[in-house]
Amino acid sequence: METLKVIRLGCVGLGGRGQSQMREMMSVPGVTVAACCDKHLDRAEAAAKSAAALQEEPPAVYTNYKELLARTDIDAILCCSTWITHARIAIDSMRAGKDVAIEVGGAASVEECWRMVRASEETGKVCMLLENCCYDRKEMALFRMVREGLFGEIVHLEGGYRHDLREEICYGRENRHGRLPNFIARNGELYPTHQLGPIAKMIGINRGNRFLTLCSLASKSRGLRVFVQKREGAEYHLANTRFNCGDVVSTTITCANGETIHLTHDCSLPRPYSRAYMIEGTNGIFQEAPFGNAIYLEDNSPPDTGWDHTWERFEDTYLPRYEHPLWDRYRAQGIHAGGHGGMDFLVCSAFIRALQTGTPPPIDVYDTAAWMVITCLSEQSVAMGGAPVPIPDFTNGAWIEREPFARTAFCLEDICEECFCN
Amino acid sequence: METLKVIRLGCVGLGGRGQSQMREMMSVPGVTVAACCDKHLDRAEAAAKSAAALQEEPPAVYTNYKELLARTDIDAILCCSTWITHARIAIDSMRAGKDVAIEVGGAASVEECWRMVRASEETGKVCMLLENCCYDRKEMALFRMVREGLFGEIVHLEGGYRHDLREEICYGRENRHGRLPNFIARNGELYPTHQLGPIAKMIGINRGNRFLTLCSLASKSRGLRVFVQKREGAEYHLANTRFNCGDVVSTTITCANGETIHLTHDCSLPRPYSRAYMIEGTNGIFQEAPFGNAIYLEDNSPPDTGWDHTWERFEDTYLPRYEHPLWDRYRAQGIHAGGHGGMDFLVCSAFIRALQTGTPPPIDVYDTAAWMVITCLSEQSVAMGGAPVPIPDFTNGAWIEREPFARTAFCLEDICEECFCN
Repeated sequence: METLKVIRLGCVGLGGRGQSQMREMMSVPGVTVAACCDKHLDRAEAAAKSAAALQEEPPAVYTNYKELLARTDIDAILCCSTWITHARIAIDSMRAGKDVAIEVGGAASVEECWRMVRASEETGKVCMLLENCCYDRKEMALFRMVREGLFGEIVHLEGGYRHDLREEICYGRENRHGRLPNFIARNGELYPTHQLGPIAKMIGINRGNRFLTLCSLASKSRGLRVFVQKREGAEYHLANTRFNCGDVVSTTITCANGETIHLTHDCSLPRPYSRAYMIEGTNGIFQEAPFGNAIYLEDNSPPDTGWDHTWERFEDTYLPRYEHPLWDRYRAQGIHAGGHGGMDFLVCSAFIRALQTGTPPPIDVYDTAAWMVITCLSEQSVAMGGAPVPIPDFTNGAWIEREPFARTAFCLEDICEECFCN
Repeated sequence: METLKVIRLGCVGLGGRGQSQMREMMSVPGVTVAACCDKHLDRAEAAAKSAAALQEEPPAVYTNYKELLARTDIDAILCCSTWITHARIAIDSMRAGKDVAIEVGGAASVEECWRMVRASEETGKVCMLLENCCYDRKEMALFRMVREGLFGEIVHLEGGYRHDLREEICYGRENRHGRLPNFIARNGELYPTHQLGPIAKMIGINRGNRFLTLCSLASKSRGLRVFVQKREGAEYHLANTRFNCGDVVSTTITCANGETIHLTHDCSLPRPYSRAYMIEGTNGIFQEAPFGNAIYLEDNSPPDTGWDHTWERFEDTYLPRYEHPLWDRYRAQGIHAGGHGGMDFLVCSAFIRALQTGTPPPIDVYDTAAWMVITCLSEQSVAMGGAPVPIPDFTNGAWIEREPFARTAFCLEDICEECFCN
């Protein structure tokens, strides 16, 4: 057995999500939670107590993250605060000499994304968005299939965060939930990274490709008001709230290599959950669909029997055949079956392994900035009636010659030899 | 039995589609084909011969449609010429005192749409786009469900023409097929009306609502070149053709009442056929999907059993329950099962019935112009990198007070009393 470097972690932002991500981090070998911080003391204490039950050392407790950052015995920060504080805390963490992993969410300004990038470049510290959907079993198998050329040249991709969150937005699991003020105040693609992260990896964004522009258009906002009035009546404190965020926000991104990516943010209407993936290339298509994920590949699918091509079921044939090696190993080990089907554990594990081995993180600060910035750019475009806005190149031209996709990214370094990434 | 007014029809443009639509028209009671015209004499003669076998009078044959229009014994024109000649022939037909039905396709300029509108207004003649998908069984049941409020307030809709036409584009069913030059020369939403027509009817476009703006973005163009090179090798005459049309063109339309409509044109990649409908309202969603059409309606679907809402199968429950009366009658009669599952007959029948009864056509010149104009506006937006472009109000403000949706449109007048349209 190798001797693992111990990573002493400070956790900042310990609502429901923060506490579950802290526990995922603790299930990765070599992690000790050294400190817990939340602006609400009760949360920080609850998290510290829960951590103390799993390790020898009881974590210190803070309500001011800057005090936590001043400690010299902490290697890395897990940041699960509200959406609009992620970047600021990440920047302060790196400037304090700590690597940082941040929970997903969009950026509030282009400038904070640049500051994250410069902080990472100037300090050499890791800044990794914990985009768990990059580590979902289906997405990783699809990533492998794209990499192995099964779809031919990729031309168009779609994804969405289509999730009925009306109850979580209007009530929250706790009173201090962060979504509500964002849906009241902002209008745009508030939550782009679940769908965009895996897509960006597939088409080598920041490694031979980059996002160029986006256009965003928002529907009217009706879902949340109808929901609260129906559920609570006209007297409820939110019954006449004006929610600025359109129920469905449609965003189309163009890329340097000619691909288009269509994203849909759709969280305030009654509908079953979907990340609404579609991958289209010169050899075929994958589509996430209500009654099973569908695939058609011209060179692979059975010959047409009717007037048209026939969908195959992705899970029946392709998923087992193109299982990503990381998932092969993960399933073989049969452990750490954590949040969201295991992808939370895998993304936390990838962050910790990068720190332990000193290898580049699979999701780096350029990815983090490029994915998060979509939110504030989308707001700008919506505000201008869908006008195209440029997406910054946070690599400052380095994308042109950075190693092609997947060479260093999106797999755990120690299985590179056995997987498709070489 | 009522005595039907005989409609003497002149058919202009008699390729494969023109000939099949001519036969659909002839299966409507009271129709006589008086003349057949195609710039290729062999086609006009073939159509006339085929018509002569079904009626007593042998149709006259023309190669110049203006000679056909000069006849005084013709009531109406069926125009199935190439896409870019539809509007011109429709305008000339109305100016010559004939009602006109035109096969689907997009417009080449905003100006020709205005000229269609003015020609209809000034002559009092009908100009009806034969948008057969408005008469599809599924679309009509959905229209009824929208009208009856099952989806709540409609917020967002999607549709596509996602149809692998590579073979038809590159070879055509005959050498004189019209698609190829359009895919070589143009870049935009070339074929919007199949999906947009039914959607426009659902949300009352031109009757209390209207299209405001659109943004269109195009992916790179790869599908057709890869197809011809793979199929025919490097020496084939199209092997190095540069196709201007992006493989996937994404268009988002905004409406006066706040709805967004997302359209996808996707005809040059290998994929199963889909019109990709989605309807989202404050009470639920319909989605056309690979393994069956899916629906979830908060007030109607069974209660959730897991962590999320559950899709129902549209065909199992909703389609039979919300069958449109027109389809009820059509199925009961069990006749005229013509092209595309019957919708070709129904749309031709609707045109002829409007002329016979003197009632407004269910798809009028304002609908025709508003749906067709999307093509040239999309080309403009693509050319400007997705910049929003305004969509003309062809009603010149009349949409504000025109009768609300479905009162006069989208059903045959003689079943209005028994259906949901009143």
